Amino acid sequence: MSFEKELLLKVKTVEDRIYRFLPEEGGLHDRVASAMNYSFMGGGKRLRPMLIMEIGEALGAKTELLDPFMAALEMIHTYSLIHDDLPAMDNDDYRRGRKTCHIEYGEAFAILAGDGLLNLAMETALTAFDFADSQKERLCVIKALRVLFDRSGLFGMIGGQTIDVENEGKQISEDVLLTIYNEKTGALIEAAMGIGAILSGAEDTLVSELMEAAREIGVAFQIQDDILDVTSTFEKLGKPINSDEKNHKVTYVTLHGLSDSEKKVRQLTDSALCRIRPVTDMNSFLKELICWLVDRDR
Amino acid sequence: MSFEKELLLKVKTVEDRIYRFLPEEGGLHDRVASAMNYSFMGGGKRLRPMLIMEIGEALGAKTELLDPFMAALEMIHTYSLIHDDLPAMDNDDYRRGRKTCHIEYGEAFAILAGDGLLNLAMETALTAFDFADSQKERLCVIKALRVLFDRSGLFGMIGGQTIDVENEGKQISEDVLLTIYNEKTGALIEAAMGIGAILSGAEDTLVSELMEAAREIGVAFQIQDDILDVTSTFEKLGKPINSDEKNHKVTYVTLHGLSDSEKKVRQLTDSALCRIRPVTDMNSFLKELICWLVDRDR
Repeated sequence: MSFEKELLLKVKTVEDRIYRFLPEEGGLHDRVASAMNYSFMGGGKRLRPMLIMEIGEALGAKTELLDPFMAALEMIHTYSLIHDDLPAMDNDDYRRGRKTCHIEYGEAFAILAGDGLLNLAMETALTAFDFADSQKERLCVIKALRVLFDRSGLFGMIGGQTIDVENEGKQISEDVLLTIYNEKTGALIEAAMGIGAILSGAEDTLVSELMEAAREIGVAFQIQDDILDVTSTFEKLGKPINSDEKNHKVTYVTLHGLSDSEKKVRQLTDSALCRIRPVTDMNSFLKELICWLVDRDR
Repeated sequence: MSFEKELLLKVKTVEDRIYRFLPEEGGLHDRVASAMNYSFMGGGKRLRPMLIMEIGEALGAKTELLDPFMAALEMIHTYSLIHDDLPAMDNDDYRRGRKTCHIEYGEAFAILAGDGLLNLAMETALTAFDFADSQKERLCVIKALRVLFDRSGLFGMIGGQTIDVENEGKQISEDVLLTIYNEKTGALIEAAMGIGAILSGAEDTLVSELMEAAREIGVAFQIQDDILDVTSTFEKLGKPINSDEKNHKVTYVTLHGLSDSEKKVRQLTDSALCRIRPVTDMNSFLKELICWLVDRDR
């Protein structure tokens, strides 16, 4: 089977496993539940839950422990997109070809749907305790919860978001740029790869290696974004190219040039692939997934 | 010591115990951390964490388990106020005599500060596991976490919020009115009283009784609000009276009249006080606190 075909099947599998944690519509809470579900079911590659699934299953974690965390992490990713799209933030009317939540449901409900998804992420992740049969498994769930909400918090995803908002249009240093890349994109990938390993009871050294690899992948992904803004076409990207230059945006490419940026992506990817070999030795799809993610032309 | 004086001392104690969970300011995340702290330290009677403290201590819970939940619950309450005040929601410029978060820090940072506080609530509550030394205590913490995020979620606080937003200016039924009262105000009081008991290892029947009492207190508090809008003065309330009538708002008083509303408050309060007697027998301040809360003229 081709990688693309396998990927589509995996996306379908992930969605089947996470959709059942969504709230029922109808009744007095119909509108906010609909808004939450509308955004959650808005497509995407389900990369974060897929990483939990691929790593967790390669290392022998129980499905019942993985599922709630897969759903919770995707809820956190989704709520962050809903709030990011708001008029006071990025003010986007469309995402993945559909109207954004506040365009479809109004701003008040978009705020509440985002809050609702973050709260539901916690409720959902906590259901993993129902399937933790031993003291050891309960401790794994506690550890996974802590990684999840640490990486989605002030020194993770929300932090990256705020540094990004605060520095919009400003000339930032390489340090700040890399912190934004690390926290805004890297943090939830880090959570995904860490949680997959933690729930399988992996040793701390392997968990650390996977989370370090995730940081490298997150930064490589963002630099590749910067590269594509210069080298790709409108047709391939589905959005205007050279937008960073037009917006006078500091990117890795504006700081280091194209050739060094490409070298950096290669170097980060190689390092990450080396770190995760204990897992990819058992799961070749995971290796292809990471290469597809970083070494892309779209 | 007078009740008012004792209350002020308790507020101070609660604040001392919960402020240390706030994020440090400075560095790249300074602005969002400042916005979070600004709103969290904006005063108020700290009723919810105080209820956790009073019930938990009366029943013999460990301080180290109570503190993280006291802070987490107040963070949840605070984030809900920040998001409620936003222009797309209630559009309030002032709260407790200070500028609201979005007026002081801008709308983008108010959204992010709210998200940050909800996320931090989870991180903070999870630290209770550090002090849960036995299997039994760990199970209590898990149960308290579930109550906390159930009551703050779609069928609790966020739910009440959304029904309220959706029905603004509409003629609603008594059922819907009571659901709003229950979920919007009652849910976090319910969480507070339930968590205080759960963390002390109380039996399920007592936990249920306390949570039922909390629902009664929440509704009584709201009906008293409706009564004061008719019977109080601008000076006492610190806001215009008769505003419900002017806004054609359905309240318990518009549905049942003043005398029946007063009767209902008395009946709910008596029932609640009866249910919580196992705790107030050991803690007379708690009884005074609840009476002060409901039977007020301000």
